[in-house]
Amino acid sequence: MTSAKYDVLGIGNAIFDVLVKTDEGFLGAHGMTKGGMALIDEARAAAIYQDMGPATEMSGGSAANTIVGLASFGARTAYVGKIRDDQIGRLYTHDIRAAGVAFQTRPAKDGPATGCSYILVTPDGERTMNTYLGAAQELTPGDIDPTEIAASSIVYLEGYLWDPKNAKDAFVKASTIAHNAGRQVALTLSDSFCVDRYRGEFLDLMRGGTVDLVFANEAELHSLYQTSDFDTALTQLRADVKLGVVTRSAKGCVVASKDGIAMVPAFPIREMVDTTGAGDLFAAGFLFGLVRGTGHEIAGRLGALAAAEVIQHIGARPQTSLKQLAQQNGLPV
Amino acid sequence: MTSAKYDVLGIGNAIFDVLVKTDEGFLGAHGMTKGGMALIDEARAAAIYQDMGPATEMSGGSAANTIVGLASFGARTAYVGKIRDDQIGRLYTHDIRAAGVAFQTRPAKDGPATGCSYILVTPDGERTMNTYLGAAQELTPGDIDPTEIAASSIVYLEGYLWDPKNAKDAFVKASTIAHNAGRQVALTLSDSFCVDRYRGEFLDLMRGGTVDLVFANEAELHSLYQTSDFDTALTQLRADVKLGVVTRSAKGCVVASKDGIAMVPAFPIREMVDTTGAGDLFAAGFLFGLVRGTGHEIAGRLGALAAAEVIQHIGARPQTSLKQLAQQNGLPV
Repeated sequence: MTSAKYDVLGIGNAIFDVLVKTDEGFLGAHGMTKGGMALIDEARAAAIYQDMGPATEMSGGSAANTIVGLASFGARTAYVGKIRDDQIGRLYTHDIRAAGVAFQTRPAKDGPATGCSYILVTPDGERTMNTYLGAAQELTPGDIDPTEIAASSIVYLEGYLWDPKNAKDAFVKASTIAHNAGRQVALTLSDSFCVDRYRGEFLDLMRGGTVDLVFANEAELHSLYQTSDFDTALTQLRADVKLGVVTRSAKGCVVASKDGIAMVPAFPIREMVDTTGAGDLFAAGFLFGLVRGTGHEIAGRLGALAAAEVIQHIGARPQTSLKQLAQQNGLPV
Repeated sequence: MTSAKYDVLGIGNAIFDVLVKTDEGFLGAHGMTKGGMALIDEARAAAIYQDMGPATEMSGGSAANTIVGLASFGARTAYVGKIRDDQIGRLYTHDIRAAGVAFQTRPAKDGPATGCSYILVTPDGERTMNTYLGAAQELTPGDIDPTEIAASSIVYLEGYLWDPKNAKDAFVKASTIAHNAGRQVALTLSDSFCVDRYRGEFLDLMRGGTVDLVFANEAELHSLYQTSDFDTALTQLRADVKLGVVTRSAKGCVVASKDGIAMVPAFPIREMVDTTGAGDLFAAGFLFGLVRGTGHEIAGRLGALAAAEVIQHIGARPQTSLKQLAQQNGLPV
């Protein structure tokens, strides 16, 4: 195994976020399930956008947020995701590169526009996402550069990649290359509705060793094992994957490995503003700890710290240097 | 004089804001004058953007921010400004209409893209703007609809309109129509460097009665009369315009009319985050008071309240209902 060029390379749906504060009534009037991510087509995107209030825009996408968070901690990172060569695609490219992330995926020259997620943030800080995949639909195995994958200590993949038609092949190709190069593969389950769509395939990925590390929140874990009992689900998770990390919002996280279980508390916050990116940034901190060899408990604390930063402002990307934030809180970076 | 369809109609450069937190070093390295608005061409826009960190985007433009602020107070409003029919132009159109503003200016079908301002926000909250006018260059007198102008109690114009080549003709056309219909015309001086470019013309507008009300901050007032003495400048302002309103940041504002001078304190804030939009939102509150006939002191307090809201978060548009905010603070709306 040669030395790594990147600590973490992420692959995901490249999505531009259009965020607006709203009330519960808006969700009800539009038949949205609060807290979830719904895939929408162009017509529904137009209808939702038409009714939405004035918005704030910024680059997003689950795995991309995680990778930007890792870069903010000081990790060497790369991202693979499909945009269109349009104005929003150029904003997207700027933001991820400006964060210090290597981003070389060839933009689509035709077809749908760069993907957008219409994110409604209710007064309690909860976000409800409506995602038009757009150009993210066009990600194929051809976008996976074997050299870059093999040069990354960890390849990080999002469950959302099961939605676009060819991205799962890109996912499996990346995992195979990574493992052949002696690297690790991590997966986030993304969303409980996503788990519901692809439960069997996700379990196969875990049991067949396509992924070594799984991130899930409680809802995703319960959906995966179709049980409302946390301990039952956790026991199954430990049996199915080398390392499982379950986030539990204010209750902190649980790190489950063959060796045992570690519990890490959440990080205190002043005010919950917008949960968008909470899970993504938790994964950033945890993966940073992992690549720096801090051990699971410190990794969990780094994850909790990054999640706490991102939920205290609008948007899914850090607004401050996570490296400095970790230093100020006595955590190793 | 028929009854008004709009309380305030604003005309300005339609600009999409690209905001980033940065340090003083960035301004120095790029030869930027802190706190100002510099006009940049496409090449310099590309160079600045290339070096900027990951950004947050939202609709902006000085007069547009004021009009959105007025709508947030509950006023009936319209806006005239030129965008291109591109992705950013569509975001722009959505945001201003979603705020409740009538916006019917025909977008440019070719030529430069929708204008953008690259806004650097330093740790002290001060913003430094670099504006690529883009499609805003294409505003002409043909974009001024006489019926809409004549149906607006106040026409609000920004000094920045002196920069694009044909916008000043649109400005004068609008003022003439407004006055013929018995309406009032307000002008913001926009920026001390802008005043420096067009001092003589701005004074002609005031002395010739093309404008009835002028908004200025201290730097703009000093630039207009080329004096460092505030009282001297204020005396001249009173002689040159029916109503002059001078904002003085934390020192509040001074309202100067033929009848006398009123001083209104600033509104207390918890934390200064980003001054972008402070003057624009002050004008929104003041104009709202004016159209509701509150008297100058209450109008000044409404302006101070709106300015205080906008400087406590990133971006130049209100993030909360100004109507509700005013009610919570015992001000009439």
